[in-house]
Amino acid sequence: MAAATDAAAPAYRLVVIRHGESEWNKANRFTGWKDVALTAKGHEEAAEAGKLIKEAGIEFDAVYTSVLKRAISTMWHVLEELDLQWLPVTRMWRLNERHYGALQGLNKAETAEKHGADQVKIWRRSYATPPPPLEADDERHPSRDRRYAGVPADAIPASESLKDTVARFLPAWETEIAPAIRTGKRVLIVAHGNSLRALVKHLDSVSEEDIVELNIPTGVPLVYELDAELKPIRHYYLGDAEAAAAKAAAVAAQAAGKKE
Amino acid sequence: MAAATDAAAPAYRLVVIRHGESEWNKANRFTGWKDVALTAKGHEEAAEAGKLIKEAGIEFDAVYTSVLKRAISTMWHVLEELDLQWLPVTRMWRLNERHYGALQGLNKAETAEKHGADQVKIWRRSYATPPPPLEADDERHPSRDRRYAGVPADAIPASESLKDTVARFLPAWETEIAPAIRTGKRVLIVAHGNSLRALVKHLDSVSEEDIVELNIPTGVPLVYELDAELKPIRHYYLGDAEAAAAKAAAVAAQAAGKKE
Repeated sequence: MAAATDAAAPAYRLVVIRHGESEWNKANRFTGWKDVALTAKGHEEAAEAGKLIKEAGIEFDAVYTSVLKRAISTMWHVLEELDLQWLPVTRMWRLNERHYGALQGLNKAETAEKHGADQVKIWRRSYATPPPPLEADDERHPSRDRRYAGVPADAIPASESLKDTVARFLPAWETEIAPAIRTGKRVLIVAHGNSLRALVKHLDSVSEEDIVELNIPTGVPLVYELDAELKPIRHYYLGDAEAAAAKAAAVAAQAAGKKE
Repeated sequence: MAAATDAAAPAYRLVVIRHGESEWNKANRFTGWKDVALTAKGHEEAAEAGKLIKEAGIEFDAVYTSVLKRAISTMWHVLEELDLQWLPVTRMWRLNERHYGALQGLNKAETAEKHGADQVKIWRRSYATPPPPLEADDERHPSRDRRYAGVPADAIPASESLKDTVARFLPAWETEIAPAIRTGKRVLIVAHGNSLRALVKHLDSVSEEDIVELNIPTGVPLVYELDAELKPIRHYYLGDAEAAAAKAAAVAAQAAGKKE
């Protein structure tokens, strides 16, 4: 991170937040597109994120989030803390978490038993290997969920590698969010561990090897200062830097058991 | 209300909800466009509205609300009860409460003292007489609030009669909400006493004399069944009919002191 005095004046500022703890984070299950609620701790983390933004005096004009309630509830807490309930909110399936295919709903022990520990490690650590897909007639398949009725059939995933998540996230950035930032809108994104990895990979040109090791802590606002071409000048977490690092480490330790 | 057996089969169904009790309802102040929060009772009313819709098995595809947080918070509770947090929500200033001009913030006693009881009665009871307008340099003027930055200056009210509210509400209906219903979208509107009066006046062709006497209870879902031309076939409140009537009477009794 460049010292503020060395950095060029940013043209734009973008804030991103990963949702707070969900019921299935807590239960150590692969979550993906399963629409699980925040825990009580997750609600607290979300409100805390809002308070940090308020203390920093950051304002917004537009909000983007996924169609999953753990992100939407987090966003509601932030808007409430900022007294910005009136802001226009765009919900986009392309901001969803990585789709975990047939692993969704399984916990760590079940997954290792069913597929073997080595295979699970590959799904967790590789950039481009997706877990086994959901069958089309599986009740968990997104084509059976009416919130995805407007998504073309060939764009609906039955499983995703992180590479796949990056590929379906980027059109949301290129066609909606980046243009809004370029028109001067101050944007807040509330999303998920892997859709935010996709964003960070794109913004900071992170390698495939490094992006799978990047852990964004839950409920800590991450501020990007961007130049006129939307290239990052610097980024930083709001609040106590050590606390954010400890949170990221805790997320990494949890991910050693499973990813979400 | 026509008996269900007599009625033609509805082409569309529309549900509207008036927000729950707000802090200034409770304090008996003219609220208008002042962005006040729900009370604890208001939050409960909102959740109850969601439960009634869930019990009735009604689904939605799109939500419209105002840019005032007492309506938005009410809507959030309803989406949460229905597990429909992912629904697209459109916030529109045209769905706001009637603008109460220079009366906003005054309580009943202050208003009667300042303007006389007879004058206050006219502002409360007439269809077309607006309260005194806010001065352009009044900090309460909507042109000083950035949420209205996109509204043309000549469309921003400094005070409104109910007639004015009807006139600025109707474009939202004609250009956005009615077209969505015609494409088959099942619509929920969460708004305010007077923006919903505007809708009801339009749908049911209520006279100017009668619409000022109509009291929509807070937090009770009002269902409209519409024909193919969006003309009402019938309407009814969800839940206990007597409870809804009692609530409307309570609203009317409160309104005998002031309107919001």
